Amino acid sequence: MNGRTNDSSNVVSRRRLLGTSGAGVLGGALGSMGLANTAAAHTSSLPESWDLEADVVILGSGGAGTTAAIEAARAGASVIIIEKATNPGGNTAHSGGVVYLGAGTARQLEHGVEDSVQNMYAYLEAQMGPTQDLERLRYFVENSVEHYNWLVESGIEFGTEFFTGKIIQPSGETGGLAFSGNEANSPFSEIATPAQRGHMPAGAGAAVYAALKATADTLPIEWHFNTQGEELLVDADGRVAGVVVRTGIADPSTPTEEGTPVSATPAADSMVLNVKANKGVVLATGGFQFNQEMLADHAPWYIGGYPLGGPHQGDDGSGIKMGAQIGGDAFNMSFASPWNFVYAPGELCQSILVDGMGRRFTAESNYGADTGDPIFRRNHGIGWLIMDQGVLDRATEAGALMSAPFATADTIEELAEQIGVPAAVLSAELAFYNEQAANGEDPIFHKHSEYVVPLETAPFYAFDYGINRGIAFITLGGLRANMNSEILDVWGNVIPGLYGAGRVAPGISQEYYVSGSALADCTFWGRVAGRSVAAV
Amino acid sequence: MNGRTNDSSNVVSRRRLLGTSGAGVLGGALGSMGLANTAAAHTSSLPESWDLEADVVILGSGGAGTTAAIEAARAGASVIIIEKATNPGGNTAHSGGVVYLGAGTARQLEHGVEDSVQNMYAYLEAQMGPTQDLERLRYFVENSVEHYNWLVESGIEFGTEFFTGKIIQPSGETGGLAFSGNEANSPFSEIATPAQRGHMPAGAGAAVYAALKATADTLPIEWHFNTQGEELLVDADGRVAGVVVRTGIADPSTPTEEGTPVSATPAADSMVLNVKANKGVVLATGGFQFNQEMLADHAPWYIGGYPLGGPHQGDDGSGIKMGAQIGGDAFNMSFASPWNFVYAPGELCQSILVDGMGRRFTAESNYGADTGDPIFRRNHGIGWLIMDQGVLDRATEAGALMSAPFATADTIEELAEQIGVPAAVLSAELAFYNEQAANGEDPIFHKHSEYVVPLETAPFYAFDYGINRGIAFITLGGLRANMNSEILDVWGNVIPGLYGAGRVAPGISQEYYVSGSALADCTFWGRVAGRSVAAV
Repeated sequence: MNGRTNDSSNVVSRRRLLGTSGAGVLGGALGSMGLANTAAAHTSSLPESWDLEADVVILGSGGAGTTAAIEAARAGASVIIIEKATNPGGNTAHSGGVVYLGAGTARQLEHGVEDSVQNMYAYLEAQMGPTQDLERLRYFVENSVEHYNWLVESGIEFGTEFFTGKIIQPSGETGGLAFSGNEANSPFSEIATPAQRGHMPAGAGAAVYAALKATADTLPIEWHFNTQGEELLVDADGRVAGVVVRTGIADPSTPTEEGTPVSATPAADSMVLNVKANKGVVLATGGFQFNQEMLADHAPWYIGGYPLGGPHQGDDGSGIKMGAQIGGDAFNMSFASPWNFVYAPGELCQSILVDGMGRRFTAESNYGADTGDPIFRRNHGIGWLIMDQGVLDRATEAGALMSAPFATADTIEELAEQIGVPAAVLSAELAFYNEQAANGEDPIFHKHSEYVVPLETAPFYAFDYGINRGIAFITLGGLRANMNSEILDVWGNVIPGLYGAGRVAPGISQEYYVSGSALADCTFWGRVAGRSVAAV
Repeated sequence: MNGRTNDSSNVVSRRRLLGTSGAGVLGGALGSMGLANTAAAHTSSLPESWDLEADVVILGSGGAGTTAAIEAARAGASVIIIEKATNPGGNTAHSGGVVYLGAGTARQLEHGVEDSVQNMYAYLEAQMGPTQDLERLRYFVENSVEHYNWLVESGIEFGTEFFTGKIIQPSGETGGLAFSGNEANSPFSEIATPAQRGHMPAGAGAAVYAALKATADTLPIEWHFNTQGEELLVDADGRVAGVVVRTGIADPSTPTEEGTPVSATPAADSMVLNVKANKGVVLATGGFQFNQEMLADHAPWYIGGYPLGGPHQGDDGSGIKMGAQIGGDAFNMSFASPWNFVYAPGELCQSILVDGMGRRFTAESNYGADTGDPIFRRNHGIGWLIMDQGVLDRATEAGALMSAPFATADTIEELAEQIGVPAAVLSAELAFYNEQAANGEDPIFHKHSEYVVPLETAPFYAFDYGINRGIAFITLGGLRANMNSEILDVWGNVIPGLYGAGRVAPGISQEYYVSGSALADCTFWGRVAGRSVAAV
């Protein structure tokens, strides 16, 4: 794998995208307006002396920061990692541990999963949203097997269980290989051969991180915990020369009595240190789902969702802000991935999921982001899973339900009254659904036929599948990086000495997410960042 | 009117908003993470000599820039205006000329319109979106009558016609006073007494701007046309000290043969000038609807829409980028206002507007942004206006239709086939609508009862109301300003010497727009900017 390509590839890919997917509707002549591409040389007041110094200074010790550290240290660079929490690992260590890998990994081959670069690319191209960077996607897919091998060599033991059905992810006890997105759902199953790509070790994200940390611990890396980056320092040539950090950050590693951790705050003996970075600074600070003000500014729909992350609430957007403060280009900031899985068990997908008006809005068997995102963006937080006694019986038989029904009624009209949706609408919606389902059809949303059955056996049940359920989400937007994980400014110029990977600088998950794409992003592009900065 | 208030009011208002409108769902403890509030002192390499100098340098000569110039010059400051186009006026001069003013303007009183600060505030609070800045809104509403009087004194003659019905806006020949948003639609009509606030002069935006320009021409203001701002220059104290501009920008003031203007490009004898700003720089460069790359990065849904603006395509996002390059806080960048008016004539609202799945998605009588935005954000650009012969006859009698039907058929199923939506769905949708409409009810979208009639008389017609129609839009997001129109950085600190007004720094239209709110924003906050910078 070689992360060094033309700096402009990112921009070129976006331009190409615009040329083919919409800009041409009105003639296509509304291109870039010839804006000035000035490289402003902003500088900071550099300190007279430095408190710490290394070739590479990395902010954040999750999957992105740790893989960057490993690659940079292996290339001979001295490395300092700055971590706000008391323990390393960030969101990676608290995640489900699924890594999105394919195109013919050893584990896929063992299970006879048909996959290839072309097949994996075709699925992700269709899945990951129209604004994605296809050049970046191509590079990621072409190196996916290499990355799988690297992770295995780093000590991650992906589970040997193999799953063909509709599960959220394998159990933490076994790990394994499973569908982790919409691979088997329409229209994707017609675009690419469905292939399981969600690779997960027993022990989930904690196991992923433990392996990476053990590998890092074989290398001379200097770790600073309870320490947070505050400000990037720029020299007279416009190069990021270091970073101001604050020590003594209290990490509330256990939840409070209310069940929610308190903010990280500096201790009384907190100190400000100037840290010199001879080759560069790598931002690996994650997204901003824990920063309510940034959510309000960029992605207000998701306020009220449940921000995903460890107890230290690492993803506070600080790295994005530090980069933007010196002109870094924050993009796609309005996108997030909120998961509201109807399954498991898969039988629950035989229900219908309706909004506050009593109308369906997606195929219930879709990946959790498809059932979750409209609830935030369109439905004002409301989602109701409606089923009859038949579905409830079949689902109960297949596995434990995760919640109790909110309402039960002998008629759909009474049920509608209880949940506060227009009875006439829900009744008409169900009547239309049943009429089509009797023929095994779902003409609007094309739910997998396995889950299309009429709902006719009273009593009827409504489960609250809205934000009250606690829909977890992460943010997807961040600073723009090029293919070398160098951060670009708003005019598309490289900010010398500044790198980023993981959610702070989106990889392939720029607009959409499937389970495992964040861990894949952070470890893959973290490695690229580590190699790039060490090569300076 | 006095623009000087506490610098932190903007932030306070957002915090208050978060506390009351959603953040509390999961316990409310997920507040700001105590991020560092560092004021980075970035500096530029200042030029050894300056080519031009004034107290106040304004980029952009639309409503925001020109009102800022007027107020600054009246306060005794010397003023330079930099304008990319050959002529002044920006989007203001090319706009419909509606200005959103109320709370008891002289024109409202003449027509017996009941309005007050409380009433206007109540409507806008409900209308302008949950992320809006209520402190800012309050200030705007409380000073609306004063601003009306100022505009009249500046020479704008708002028309005397008075409109009670459903029109897009008064004719350019008369101007007048009309409903310009959803004042008379549910649920707003129950929240506040419907009041006409769309004030428009004969001659539309050209007349608005001609009056402002004539006023400006009584003051010692230096105008530079065909000149574009490129880079803000920051001194050693972190203050914006000036701006680099480029002269000789060719303004293609007439459309090309293809009907679309070409990009503004510098002439062969283009020069770069360093312009010193002793008191400050005011950004008044508009939004970014003409910048396809910025749309792709921040608001990709609207690609394919018709960017609104004059032939010089002024709204290229350059001011937002210049501000962001030195740490300015760009927010709400994903919001735009795309107008897809079903009316006029109002009888067309008796149709149903459906998406590509054949389902309604809003009340057809709503303001154009409500019928336009879902087409971009949800419907992949698709919108079909479905009517029967009865609606077509009544609408034709009431006024000329703006387009011809795309398809005609004797049955709704045949019509569905012709437009490519699922026939079973459109048929069920219409059947349900007709059943409810027979009782004068619209239980899902609560369309005004005046427009709720069954559609039963063949033949049926479908009009293409999707993006092929050319749905015009402007962007709403931009740089965050405080109540003094000072631009804030990503940490909420004032960037000394940098001001902004109009779409580059959203006023009250931060998330939503009603006709006239952009002209109100740019002229109101432009005045605030001019006063603030002159007072330095």
